[in-house]
Amino acid sequence: MKRTICFGLMLIISLTFSAFNLKAEEGMYPLSEINKLDLRSMGFQLEAAELYNPQGVSLIDAIIDLGGCSASFVSADGLILTNYHCAFGAIQGVTTPENDYFRDGFLARSRSEEVEAKNYTVRIIESYRDVSGEVLSALKKNMTHTQRAKAIEEKMKRIVTAVEKKSPGTNAEVAEMFQGKTYVLFIYRYIKDVRLVYAPPRSVGEFGGEPDNWMWPRHTGDFAFMRAYVAPDGSTAVYAPNNAPFHPKKYLCVAPEGVQAEDFVFILGYPGTTRRHNTSHFLAYEEEVRMPFVVDLFDWIIKLKEKMSQLDRATAIKLSASLKGLWNNVIRSRGQLKGLKNLNLAEKRLEKEKALQEFIVADPTRQKKYGKLLDDIKGVYDEKRVNAGFNLTVEYLVGSRTTTMLSTAFKIYLAACERQKKDTEREEDYMDRNFDRTLKRVEMDLRNYYEPADKAILKEILMRAAGLKGEQRIPAVQGIIENNDPGKAIDAFVEKAYSETKLNDPAVVKGLFKKSQQELQAMTDPFITLARGLYPSFRAMKDAEKREKGILDPLLAQLIDVKKEFIGKDFIPDANSTFRLTFGRVRGYSPSDAVRMLPFTTLTGVVEKHNAHNGQDPFTAPRKLIDLLAAKDFGRFRHAGLDDVPVAMLYNMDTTGGNSGSPVLNAKGQLVGLNFDRVFEATINDYAWDESYSRSIGVDIRYVLWFLEKFSAVDYLLKEMGVL
Amino acid sequence: MKRTICFGLMLIISLTFSAFNLKAEEGMYPLSEINKLDLRSMGFQLEAAELYNPQGVSLIDAIIDLGGCSASFVSADGLILTNYHCAFGAIQGVTTPENDYFRDGFLARSRSEEVEAKNYTVRIIESYRDVSGEVLSALKKNMTHTQRAKAIEEKMKRIVTAVEKKSPGTNAEVAEMFQGKTYVLFIYRYIKDVRLVYAPPRSVGEFGGEPDNWMWPRHTGDFAFMRAYVAPDGSTAVYAPNNAPFHPKKYLCVAPEGVQAEDFVFILGYPGTTRRHNTSHFLAYEEEVRMPFVVDLFDWIIKLKEKMSQLDRATAIKLSASLKGLWNNVIRSRGQLKGLKNLNLAEKRLEKEKALQEFIVADPTRQKKYGKLLDDIKGVYDEKRVNAGFNLTVEYLVGSRTTTMLSTAFKIYLAACERQKKDTEREEDYMDRNFDRTLKRVEMDLRNYYEPADKAILKEILMRAAGLKGEQRIPAVQGIIENNDPGKAIDAFVEKAYSETKLNDPAVVKGLFKKSQQELQAMTDPFITLARGLYPSFRAMKDAEKREKGILDPLLAQLIDVKKEFIGKDFIPDANSTFRLTFGRVRGYSPSDAVRMLPFTTLTGVVEKHNAHNGQDPFTAPRKLIDLLAAKDFGRFRHAGLDDVPVAMLYNMDTTGGNSGSPVLNAKGQLVGLNFDRVFEATINDYAWDESYSRSIGVDIRYVLWFLEKFSAVDYLLKEMGVL
Repeated sequence: MKRTICFGLMLIISLTFSAFNLKAEEGMYPLSEINKLDLRSMGFQLEAAELYNPQGVSLIDAIIDLGGCSASFVSADGLILTNYHCAFGAIQGVTTPENDYFRDGFLARSRSEEVEAKNYTVRIIESYRDVSGEVLSALKKNMTHTQRAKAIEEKMKRIVTAVEKKSPGTNAEVAEMFQGKTYVLFIYRYIKDVRLVYAPPRSVGEFGGEPDNWMWPRHTGDFAFMRAYVAPDGSTAVYAPNNAPFHPKKYLCVAPEGVQAEDFVFILGYPGTTRRHNTSHFLAYEEEVRMPFVVDLFDWIIKLKEKMSQLDRATAIKLSASLKGLWNNVIRSRGQLKGLKNLNLAEKRLEKEKALQEFIVADPTRQKKYGKLLDDIKGVYDEKRVNAGFNLTVEYLVGSRTTTMLSTAFKIYLAACERQKKDTEREEDYMDRNFDRTLKRVEMDLRNYYEPADKAILKEILMRAAGLKGEQRIPAVQGIIENNDPGKAIDAFVEKAYSETKLNDPAVVKGLFKKSQQELQAMTDPFITLARGLYPSFRAMKDAEKREKGILDPLLAQLIDVKKEFIGKDFIPDANSTFRLTFGRVRGYSPSDAVRMLPFTTLTGVVEKHNAHNGQDPFTAPRKLIDLLAAKDFGRFRHAGLDDVPVAMLYNMDTTGGNSGSPVLNAKGQLVGLNFDRVFEATINDYAWDESYSRSIGVDIRYVLWFLEKFSAVDYLLKEMGVL
Repeated sequence: MKRTICFGLMLIISLTFSAFNLKAEEGMYPLSEINKLDLRSMGFQLEAAELYNPQGVSLIDAIIDLGGCSASFVSADGLILTNYHCAFGAIQGVTTPENDYFRDGFLARSRSEEVEAKNYTVRIIESYRDVSGEVLSALKKNMTHTQRAKAIEEKMKRIVTAVEKKSPGTNAEVAEMFQGKTYVLFIYRYIKDVRLVYAPPRSVGEFGGEPDNWMWPRHTGDFAFMRAYVAPDGSTAVYAPNNAPFHPKKYLCVAPEGVQAEDFVFILGYPGTTRRHNTSHFLAYEEEVRMPFVVDLFDWIIKLKEKMSQLDRATAIKLSASLKGLWNNVIRSRGQLKGLKNLNLAEKRLEKEKALQEFIVADPTRQKKYGKLLDDIKGVYDEKRVNAGFNLTVEYLVGSRTTTMLSTAFKIYLAACERQKKDTEREEDYMDRNFDRTLKRVEMDLRNYYEPADKAILKEILMRAAGLKGEQRIPAVQGIIENNDPGKAIDAFVEKAYSETKLNDPAVVKGLFKKSQQELQAMTDPFITLARGLYPSFRAMKDAEKREKGILDPLLAQLIDVKKEFIGKDFIPDANSTFRLTFGRVRGYSPSDAVRMLPFTTLTGVVEKHNAHNGQDPFTAPRKLIDLLAAKDFGRFRHAGLDDVPVAMLYNMDTTGGNSGSPVLNAKGQLVGLNFDRVFEATINDYAWDESYSRSIGVDIRYVLWFLEKFSAVDYLLKEMGVL
């Protein structure tokens, strides 16, 4: 096993080939494109092969997918550094009134004190290859749109299951890079025993809470340490006390000296979803239909849950996780709506499409091949708008982001239906490889179940559903109302349902997941009955989705082709939760006329906010931190220019959700920060990127190390990372 | 008459004597101190005598007191430049639905189109002299505290009336510079015919409105032009069509090139009130008692009036002026409360007082003279706290910032009582020299009278008064309630009062101001009756005020003496609406960690706010302004670094209310801006000044001139100012 030695000498060889214009910092480059980048002209100081080397060991091997978050190995013994908010579930899982790790922080003084982080898994890329030909070979002539989409989906699943069957301990994924066009198979090393090592108090890890979320200036110590474990023989294993720390092929060195403004930096990680290649019609649909629907619904739910949270502390704790998610979503959506409007994005993209259309019609061959392309895409969204009321309402009626009882019942019923199919034909959550994960999610949902909120929300969505007209009506909802007053009928139904159901008992739910469709049909639990009634509407919604994808797949593939012809350059695929590199500089920005955001916040700023809010949650700085600042006890983590310890930093790199926990690396490939958020103006990143406002936010490594050394005195972690 | 020629040559002679430490920019220097300042070391380029020369003509002669605002002459023909908000009443006075000068702006194309600005007067300093000896000679041995205060007050009034009687057309004022210690007589030239010349549309003059008030970044075009007129023979006269423009001894030259960041600037004007020499006990009383009382009451009134304003446009217009005042007061008070708390001002001042006390007790002579000083001052505030409920409630019950009917009735009754006294023994508003002004204010109050709001507010204050306990009770309020339920009794009284009163008729009110106390006592108008009932409580409140001043006068005079001894340097008196100079630099600031406010805003920022608010009031940029920006039609007013026209600017000078409309001058004494506000953090200025956050806001002269030239094309005004 090859090990990195931190701060060793490295050969410097210049790399100059570049396929892209590197002027702007936009771009989440997939593995296949990394070696085409001329990062050295930006200031990067390593060899290309040190960054990425499919035949050997490189920085990429230190990067982890941590179940939706990114993370990295920072020691030879599998120590993982990620965000506090990524480790939140693990901390919550071991916190009790007696051991309040939210209040005190969590600190394993030795490896034996490291505790299991339930449901956490680690994935490390082993290899990847283009499988576009194989995937697209599934298409047959004369298939309907829906059949096309289904055929591609099934083919992707077949490839994945074949790989996983062949290589136990691995996890496979076929990612669609360009819709209807390019598909890449990723094979991951999979680790199932992950443990919690260190977390600061929640008042530090979530300092600023919701009011500061998506905001700059930021003062959140959003970091935590975990560790990957494997069986004594090195193979993947579930948690067992005698498992041993995993030794990664590569780990990152941390740079206690941090970075300065304008320094070159890059980020490695797993950004979730961006929509930059989508058309003006997609943007207009998002702006005018989907996001307003979601924001309005979530706003209603937030108000309800906040009101209920004021009742007592236990309720507040139960509702806190879902409120966090709702707020996060709503604020991001509001930022995006503001950005779409202020930047006139849909209109501007339409202008570009008009120019493209002119380019198409200017040449008879192009006209023949692409002439109807943009019109056909528009047609898809025209239809989507017509059916949006039905489809969106069904989606949020049966989904778990609104209620727990109905969504649990629906999952039980759907699981039974799906399990009758061949594995590769099922909805992804119900494939054999994912079924356990789905059950665990249901279990977690039930843990935070709070009947009064659930009941009120179900009533509200049913009332909204009752307002749908004509074709948009949902039969099962009409069935509840019949010819009665909708308000009264829904009220009566909901009251009865919650008083009769047994789904609030996790043991019952576990049992029901084993029942067949037929057995469920014989049941009288009101939620199972409602789920059964909603199933055809759900199917219709899913079929519409697949049909839409079936139509769009070839159209968007063609669009990429003709755009490439038009602009004369290559594109980077939109983010899709696969590995990406982005690079740029540590840099502030101007959110508005005469205002300048500087790229570093400080300990002084933490205490400033504490004082401004009378130390009220979520602006409570620990007493010790206040004292350390008063004593100017900055140690070697002092930033000379600031005469303070940098807490968070801004950079102009291109990130999105999923990049949480990503390491921020300096020109030498050393870890200098931990990405955790974007500024409000950059929520629009998902649709369009711009150097003037697209800024992401990281915890400065100097704050992490200062906190470990001065606040928690956890020298052994500093030693393990080689910085003490 | 000596005239200034703009942009002429000036002799430069260095002035180096300085009595003050010029490191910080704190300080509102009175005339007597100006020649002691070493402004040249800061960058000032004129001779001392050009700035201030009691024997000749200097810049001071161009500065005007415009009824509570400051302003300056900017042409040989009496053209006046001041804030839009200072000219607001004049614009409102001539605006009708047919001639909507709020919407269109006001523009006199020739002098004959200049319209009377009713109730506006101009004062220009003629001379001043110290009259401390004369004033203090009024004190006799064995006087009570109240007698002392009354004796000084009467003496000051005697001096004033004697001067005015001797020199018609002048206006005199004795200002208390250091409480109980120093008194200065100012004699002003008084001009009564003031006319409106030019005002931009309200959307420009009040751009940003309430949301932006006290805020930076700021984009308000807060400027307007007026003109002073005198009788054809040059004497002071009331408005008459054949009056002629006044030719000032001196007028300011405007500098179309503006200023740059870090340039030396100074301000001349009439700052209202600061409280920097007051003790920790005063600060604590303000923070804990007075301001919370006022903010809570005004908040209630604002909510009521805002709700009523949504009913219809006519009501909104009626309530707009008072809402503006209330908001202005509440936001400033909130900023001050925040500053007092965050800066720990009261506590810090107490620390200083403790150090002073140690200095006092260290020397037996000092101990004998000043030993009880600080304790005695504390005693005054201890007593003040006890009676605050009664005194504050009476003050706001009879005052015009809450209701119109009761306050009008009270003024009528008070006028009758006061007129029985000798002129110099009356409350200032009821002295012969001020009586007309008082009547005009009542007339203006009645113009914006809106019964539903007035009624609701009176009920609310009476209810608050009904909540007072024991000694704090107000007999007249108890008389309304008797033994009934307070809510019902007050409701019944108020409903009856508003249905019976005739005071909503301005003609009736005018007549009542001529009645004697006896005649009024015979009246049955419910508000006159209530006013009569409240009169003894008002007297008690006023007597408490005078008694407090009588005690504090000698104590605070001693405090200044011993502080001077302790610190070993001179002090500048607190602002008291008399002429002051302050100087400093054009400079941004940091309101919080990682945020930097730059010192100039731009046209781009105006349009940015317009777009962010969908052009909704008060963020409506005129179409023409948007087009001029799009065309980058900046002319010679372009700031090269910004590539834009500067709109507003920040500087670290020491200002307060009353400095509105003050000219901002460059090192050559040329006008480069127009002061109109402070930043939120600097509302605390009135209690303590600090370079780090004390910033004031001015309109940049480049925006004023650009607007005149490009937007309104009023070349003749530019020519009159010598810039075209």
